[in-house]
Amino acid sequence: MTAVMANQKIKIGLVGFGTVGVGVCKILQEQATLLANRSGAEFEVVKVAMRDTTKKRDIELPAGAATTDWQEVVNHPEVELVIELMGGTGIAFDVVSAALKAGKPVITGNKALLAERGEEVFALSAENNTPIYFEASVAGGIPIIKTIREAFVGNNVANLAGIINGTCNYILERMTEAGLSYDVALKEAMDLGYAEADPTLDINGWDAGHKAILLGAMSYGFLPAPQDTYVTGIENVKLEDITLADKLGYAIKLISVVKPASEQTVEIRTQASFVPKSHLLAKVDGVFNAVALSGDAVGDSFIYGRGAGEGPTATAVVADLIDAVKNLGTANKGFLPYDTSYSVAPIDDTETAYFISIDVQDEPGVMAKITSLFSDRGISFSGTHSHLDPNAPDAAMNHVSFITHVAKYGVLKAALADLADLDCVTSEPTLYRVESF
Amino acid sequence: MTAVMANQKIKIGLVGFGTVGVGVCKILQEQATLLANRSGAEFEVVKVAMRDTTKKRDIELPAGAATTDWQEVVNHPEVELVIELMGGTGIAFDVVSAALKAGKPVITGNKALLAERGEEVFALSAENNTPIYFEASVAGGIPIIKTIREAFVGNNVANLAGIINGTCNYILERMTEAGLSYDVALKEAMDLGYAEADPTLDINGWDAGHKAILLGAMSYGFLPAPQDTYVTGIENVKLEDITLADKLGYAIKLISVVKPASEQTVEIRTQASFVPKSHLLAKVDGVFNAVALSGDAVGDSFIYGRGAGEGPTATAVVADLIDAVKNLGTANKGFLPYDTSYSVAPIDDTETAYFISIDVQDEPGVMAKITSLFSDRGISFSGTHSHLDPNAPDAAMNHVSFITHVAKYGVLKAALADLADLDCVTSEPTLYRVESF
Repeated sequence: MTAVMANQKIKIGLVGFGTVGVGVCKILQEQATLLANRSGAEFEVVKVAMRDTTKKRDIELPAGAATTDWQEVVNHPEVELVIELMGGTGIAFDVVSAALKAGKPVITGNKALLAERGEEVFALSAENNTPIYFEASVAGGIPIIKTIREAFVGNNVANLAGIINGTCNYILERMTEAGLSYDVALKEAMDLGYAEADPTLDINGWDAGHKAILLGAMSYGFLPAPQDTYVTGIENVKLEDITLADKLGYAIKLISVVKPASEQTVEIRTQASFVPKSHLLAKVDGVFNAVALSGDAVGDSFIYGRGAGEGPTATAVVADLIDAVKNLGTANKGFLPYDTSYSVAPIDDTETAYFISIDVQDEPGVMAKITSLFSDRGISFSGTHSHLDPNAPDAAMNHVSFITHVAKYGVLKAALADLADLDCVTSEPTLYRVESF
Repeated sequence: MTAVMANQKIKIGLVGFGTVGVGVCKILQEQATLLANRSGAEFEVVKVAMRDTTKKRDIELPAGAATTDWQEVVNHPEVELVIELMGGTGIAFDVVSAALKAGKPVITGNKALLAERGEEVFALSAENNTPIYFEASVAGGIPIIKTIREAFVGNNVANLAGIINGTCNYILERMTEAGLSYDVALKEAMDLGYAEADPTLDINGWDAGHKAILLGAMSYGFLPAPQDTYVTGIENVKLEDITLADKLGYAIKLISVVKPASEQTVEIRTQASFVPKSHLLAKVDGVFNAVALSGDAVGDSFIYGRGAGEGPTATAVVADLIDAVKNLGTANKGFLPYDTSYSVAPIDDTETAYFISIDVQDEPGVMAKITSLFSDRGISFSGTHSHLDPNAPDAAMNHVSFITHVAKYGVLKAALADLADLDCVTSEPTLYRVESF
């Protein structure tokens, strides 16, 4: 390859030197010619902050680049751009603040920081006229932020539904394909390194929940308050739920939905949902991520790729780095919130179809009592299922499940509360949303 | 919505006012606030060239904007950016040349112009220091150019396979799903407006072939010579081929492949191929497009969306328009070829598995003759199929098909030529590549 465009030498600093940080340095070294050819930029990693400078890593840094003090990176007089890959909302906030105040554009993969403290961070970005880039914070190998903000810049987002946590998707897939229990599948994911040592934020849904907040911000220009969004995880998904879903033509996936609920409210919710097996989202396997996105002009689109790991996330960081370099010295400010008139829709106002499953006593009138309880609240059923053994047609029916037509979540919850009061109902109901796209 | 960033008023000219041109003007009008919020730019369409200014269109232009003379658009003193949507390689070349020479950045959806005359166009872009943008030229609603060049900027493309002609995909799908003959499916596509009045470039593969050339350019930085690429269409796909493929677990799709063949050669080919039904590309229905792309760092990705039509293509034009505005007055030059050391690999050197089907005489030794002919050339089979009627096990076997292991196309062609010389072979062989991704 022959470099023909290189003309700009950029000095960068890096805070956080785990898997992704190492991946970024590898791409900058190994793809230096490609990057120069495509963008005209050459990079030098001047300073890298890490917890332990003596740890063996799969890469060579320039002599003197390693430090344990992030301030040495941000305050280094030659560092023009700061990459923050340490994670968390504490020290990472200090790093990002200091860089923005110093007028050094920031590239980060820190979804928690931006989702939890976005108001402060973007205010600093605006005040200091210094952009912050964060493609790596949502679904590493899927350029969803660039797609919403740039490729579909002239589109309102009509509907967005994503599988944006690979750990949960892996666990649910292993339960589905191999019939593993939740606990066994989770342990397998941890053994394989697909889940963190503390997988709490993955399995309780908040890793995806943070990403959904950022996708809401990209799509509608406001900063959704985390406490206004709805997030549940996969801890309560049972193998029997998956088996029954499969029989009915659905896969259970941890789905994050972002879409308009009313003129000025946006639905932002993450939960394990029923997805029709015919939809592309149902075919997303293993640790892969995917986003189904409809724009009002572009129509339906779907993007699939690896959501995490060294190469995919480093790819996103390097893409932001090149954009940051292109925007140096220009009027381009990166993302700043532009529409404060939006808010998150109350979860009770959101509407889908639902799957409901309960244990019942087999006695005359059970089905009539249950169905009239729902119909009294205007909820009707599109299907019902109970196990029937052709060899024992007279066996007791002690478990029944329904799929409802579309109804408001608040109304559905009220019906479920009534249901629990029926004597003939002998279990807590199992509830899943049935998504349509 | 409240516009907070608008600060730049851009005057544009448009040459070609068909479906896409109207769509662009609609987005600029209807999404003016969104575009201003996201990019800081406001647009005014100053001059629009069209064949017939009296034709009723679904949009209002400013008084005096319409003209039949493209020079009035390009030479208009206020026009800063020129959008070319007329198509073709003749006058469109004059339009693009004149704009670039006048230092006015160009946005185009003209794949034929760039694939056939890219060398001239990009030389003009370089000489005049004026960028040309062309996201709309490949798979309108799929931001594949932005994805390769920006999102995956630090990645070498390891493999790219796309369905990038919606007309062909629609015809093949209707043959598959409804059992239509090729002629009936083509007529249906034309009646529905999915195929042009003259569908030649769709069905002979060259619309996809031109796009594949551009994807090769984006991926490897050189301008592939059209005559060096391999392009066949769907005219010879028979319903019986589709039926048999289906039985064997494959869909037949018009697939464009772009991937490295050797250190400095790139395989660029478009043809109807066997695609495993389990792959996402096999699930692309109707007029949709999709690209499966593997990068050396990002791994596997897949992007799906509408390939043509008013909204999707206008979405791509408007995205380019915003990028063009951001780059005004900066050093960012858009795409220019950067690596002349690449060339297109000779088609005979490319390797896949193959499906071969022939009519034979049912006589002793037929299978031995055929299979030894292939094994003499080092080609082995991974499967074979012939129709067997359990009620007539003694019926003649007069048709047989094989799937080979991976082999060079040149070697396979030589084997097929030998095959035609066998007395026991009574038809021309049917040949499809069997793709793996």
